[in-house]
Amino acid sequence: VKAALLSIGDELLVGQVVNTNATWLASKCTELGITVLTVSTVGDGIDMIVEEIRRLMTLADVVITTGGLGPTHDDLTDEAILALAGASTVSPLPNNVGTAPGMLCEREGAMVIAMPGVPIEMKRMAEEVVLPMLSERIEEDEDVWQYRVVQTTAIGESKLAGVIGPVSDFLGTSTLAFLPNYHGVRLRVGARGASREVRQHELQRVIAEIKSRAGKYIYAEGETSLAETVGRLLKIRGETVAVAESCTGGLLGGAFTDVAGSSAWFEGGIISYSNAVKENELGVSHDVLQTHGAVSEEAARAMAEGVRHRLSSTWGIGITGVAGPDGGTEEKPVGTVWISVSGPRETMVRRFTFGTDRTSNRARSVGAALAMLWKQLV
Amino acid sequence: VKAALLSIGDELLVGQVVNTNATWLASKCTELGITVLTVSTVGDGIDMIVEEIRRLMTLADVVITTGGLGPTHDDLTDEAILALAGASTVSPLPNNVGTAPGMLCEREGAMVIAMPGVPIEMKRMAEEVVLPMLSERIEEDEDVWQYRVVQTTAIGESKLAGVIGPVSDFLGTSTLAFLPNYHGVRLRVGARGASREVRQHELQRVIAEIKSRAGKYIYAEGETSLAETVGRLLKIRGETVAVAESCTGGLLGGAFTDVAGSSAWFEGGIISYSNAVKENELGVSHDVLQTHGAVSEEAARAMAEGVRHRLSSTWGIGITGVAGPDGGTEEKPVGTVWISVSGPRETMVRRFTFGTDRTSNRARSVGAALAMLWKQLV
Repeated sequence: VKAALLSIGDELLVGQVVNTNATWLASKCTELGITVLTVSTVGDGIDMIVEEIRRLMTLADVVITTGGLGPTHDDLTDEAILALAGASTVSPLPNNVGTAPGMLCEREGAMVIAMPGVPIEMKRMAEEVVLPMLSERIEEDEDVWQYRVVQTTAIGESKLAGVIGPVSDFLGTSTLAFLPNYHGVRLRVGARGASREVRQHELQRVIAEIKSRAGKYIYAEGETSLAETVGRLLKIRGETVAVAESCTGGLLGGAFTDVAGSSAWFEGGIISYSNAVKENELGVSHDVLQTHGAVSEEAARAMAEGVRHRLSSTWGIGITGVAGPDGGTEEKPVGTVWISVSGPRETMVRRFTFGTDRTSNRARSVGAALAMLWKQLV
Repeated sequence: VKAALLSIGDELLVGQVVNTNATWLASKCTELGITVLTVSTVGDGIDMIVEEIRRLMTLADVVITTGGLGPTHDDLTDEAILALAGASTVSPLPNNVGTAPGMLCEREGAMVIAMPGVPIEMKRMAEEVVLPMLSERIEEDEDVWQYRVVQTTAIGESKLAGVIGPVSDFLGTSTLAFLPNYHGVRLRVGARGASREVRQHELQRVIAEIKSRAGKYIYAEGETSLAETVGRLLKIRGETVAVAESCTGGLLGGAFTDVAGSSAWFEGGIISYSNAVKENELGVSHDVLQTHGAVSEEAARAMAEGVRHRLSSTWGIGITGVAGPDGGTEEKPVGTVWISVSGPRETMVRRFTFGTDRTSNRARSVGAALAMLWKQLV
């Protein structure tokens, strides 16, 4: 099965919005074994939309569009699909998050699927309706690529590559991609073969090789977040966690509570952005703040221990750092972050030196804190 | 001048890399007044690359490619450009950051520009060579499109469309796009005209029309976030804000502290995910939690007032709701969120009924809380 993706919207052509929809859809199609031939973008003009869908129908078996399905006058995809469909049937696809339904139509041997452009609506529709439907179209015995993901953390990309060693020793015809993010490195293994069974067997063989080399860094197989894994481990142990956040300002709490059911193991926390909150709500001593500063090993430790004590949780995490762009000094440059994990037996503290970008410094701090707690739980 | 952008590389088609190059280039072209007609992507196959550049040459005056210029076997763009050029001259474009030069060739009235795919190399080459060259081609008096963004909040897309009324009454040859997100609706106005002055004047005219109809919902012109705007207003007033978050678990604090320099007006907060934290850290009475429940008008009010008092801030925000997927009841279904804003004069509370998706319920809660505080500050 060959697919072509089409993103619709002036906002993409004027460079106002990064096209993350196409990337996400391409990765999902690839995981299913569908080859994405091309990704294209056109604006909110009815002629351009119709013409482009027609062109893509001649190239691919499935054309998937996103965008242009809303209620306003510049949403023209539904009109385009109706124009293209002619006498063919157009079926609606349910939208469980928003108001505009998707559309499906088959014509001249090609399937055209139209989904909304709002990422959350598109993803839900894709996961619940479109991808399962496409999956059924892929024959059991077809010679396609199949992929599986192994999630690692607490190790960087280069070090992980060193630990795994020369991949040519064990990959054979399979592939291995290193995909780093703020919480760790995703390893995507690809295998091809004449049947699902052959592919599954080959994927298992390669993953077993990776496990034998880098097993201690693997926290999950498949699409599981590090926060989800940490939560599952806490729940099994009957333990809880609380957070004391300065430079991350609530993002670690946000990551924990992104997991459905997190109330079973996440107690809450204190966002201690000002020194007054660090002192009054977490009991960080005035002396520590005066002598060592708010960004220090001592402050991180006092924050983790303070929140653990205050909220009566099993574990406490403290994060304090200089996210940037301002506030850096020679001794503590932008990107300096202290993270502490306090537990029943001891309190650990680590210093990290990230980069100069505020957003990525904050995201990397969250990832590093999760990795530190994860290591204590396995 | 009309441009077509082509991104080249298998990594884009399998969804490994988000295509930020195309977004950046599209925004730069748009700023210059160049209309980007289409953005497309093909893999590392010589025939596809040649065929796609040929097609784009028939649509646009300038075709700009990125990717496929490196030293490895899968870098085929240089080969494609040479094949297309025939007897025409191919000029190299200097690369001051990396090793692979860009390429320029003019044929059949179209200009083809090939740049590297590494973002930092592409951006430097674009800024130093390509964009100045294209700028020269655009006469001051040429008939191009220009865009400006107006940000609105505290009103939904359909209602806003109703408030603005029939756009044909005032748009003329200009365009207006509604781009909703979780914090509001972005309005993108486009105007064309024979000179920069004419276009600026027309943009001002249309924006003045929008302001006269929907002015009370506009929080900024240009690319400013709602949290940034709220922070700026607080700073001007010499006031501060603190947050008490239940279902958002820290995301509102995360949004405030995403703004550089937020320590001037953001005090911190309490993530009161459990009832114990609501009682002990925010002073929500046991009676309120027993009688009305943690998701109630009374609890939201007590949270906002509690955090305002505890952290000695000018404003306190409380958020409590059922994010889902579990925890809904007939009386309080998933998507029910109470938000309270407590200030020097009074405490306001509003009930929202969002959807069934946990992630979007949380994001919409953050947007609604920011909008409520913004309304108190203007």
